Amino acid sequence: VSTRRVRLSPATRREQLLDLGLQLLQTRTLDELSIDLLADEAGISRGLLYHYFSGKQDFHRAVVRRAADDLIARTAPEESREPTERLAASLHAYVDYVLDNYAAYVSLVKSAAGGDHVLRAIYEDTRTALTGRIFDSLPELGLDDTPAVRLLARGWSALVEETVLAWAPDQEVPKDDLVALLAAALPGVLQGAGASVVAEP
Amino acid sequence: VSTRRVRLSPATRREQLLDLGLQLLQTRTLDELSIDLLADEAGISRGLLYHYFSGKQDFHRAVVRRAADDLIARTAPEESREPTERLAASLHAYVDYVLDNYAAYVSLVKSAAGGDHVLRAIYEDTRTALTGRIFDSLPELGLDDTPAVRLLARGWSALVEETVLAWAPDQEVPKDDLVALLAAALPGVLQGAGASVVAEP
Repeated sequence: VSTRRVRLSPATRREQLLDLGLQLLQTRTLDELSIDLLADEAGISRGLLYHYFSGKQDFHRAVVRRAADDLIARTAPEESREPTERLAASLHAYVDYVLDNYAAYVSLVKSAAGGDHVLRAIYEDTRTALTGRIFDSLPELGLDDTPAVRLLARGWSALVEETVLAWAPDQEVPKDDLVALLAAALPGVLQGAGASVVAEP
Repeated sequence: VSTRRVRLSPATRREQLLDLGLQLLQTRTLDELSIDLLADEAGISRGLLYHYFSGKQDFHRAVVRRAADDLIARTAPEESREPTERLAASLHAYVDYVLDNYAAYVSLVKSAAGGDHVLRAIYEDTRTALTGRIFDSLPELGLDDTPAVRLLARGWSALVEETVLAWAPDQEVPKDDLVALLAAALPGVLQGAGASVVAEP
């Protein structure tokens, strides 16, 4: 094995810088993540960094997109499983992702309300991707695809996000119980909306 | 009846300015709501405005707190009703509030992710007040007050917020159906968490 350093392609080098950016987000907010800090931590010059990112905003967008892509990839459903098991497995992966990347995930969620329309779009696309998996499973779950189901599936995603973010710091409830409760909440929420006629309360 | 103008107390005048601020929020974001604009619309001088608010941030905090107080007051449960009816009535009031104050409500929600810790605290206090009503109803609903129930009740609040915000622009689902679905979702979400032992998935 040669100890000679492998010359990295610009694309690989950029990915490494994004890895580093995500790591740095564990202990600081997106606002605090500056190009200077990244250059320092990467041990390269500010000038070289501008070879990879046009500026701080471009860097932030790339880091948040990376966080979103990681989340979507890590929670990808295993098509071979039953819908209920598949949901539980995805939820487990989601909770693990949030635990491993708490601060970066909070940055992703916060960017949904911020002033940068690209960051907002990344957040929306992520939620759409995660919620879309539920729509794909509706026939298997015996539910119709109605406007009410689409609304409530989106609502359930917000429930999962809020519950996991509130749970993560203390983890008072065992993780497996949390996942079981979140999974059980989906049919609980959608049941009424999946029928063609909605009953009066 | 005298047509002489009544001299308003400073407190009343301040409340009027907050009413105006909320009105202005219907067509612009919080960032766009400046002291200059408020002075113009109120027909008073910038100098006089600083008599009521120490600056733009103070004004924004006061407007957002007013929006939050209005929301809490308008959705106050009628203690005389059954818990299920009470929930449906509060949800109806909540949906009406969001429809009447859509832009201002979006500002309240967005401030939860913004940089101003006072605005974040107002949002958190509001959610705590709304969710607290659910905890008060738990005995009547036959549910134990467990950490899991508290987490999921908070999650259900996020579900309601997200669903109503997503529903409001198009209102594809009739309002009464939406309220019925949101109300039915609460026991659907809490059922598993209210028992002392959580079943495995």
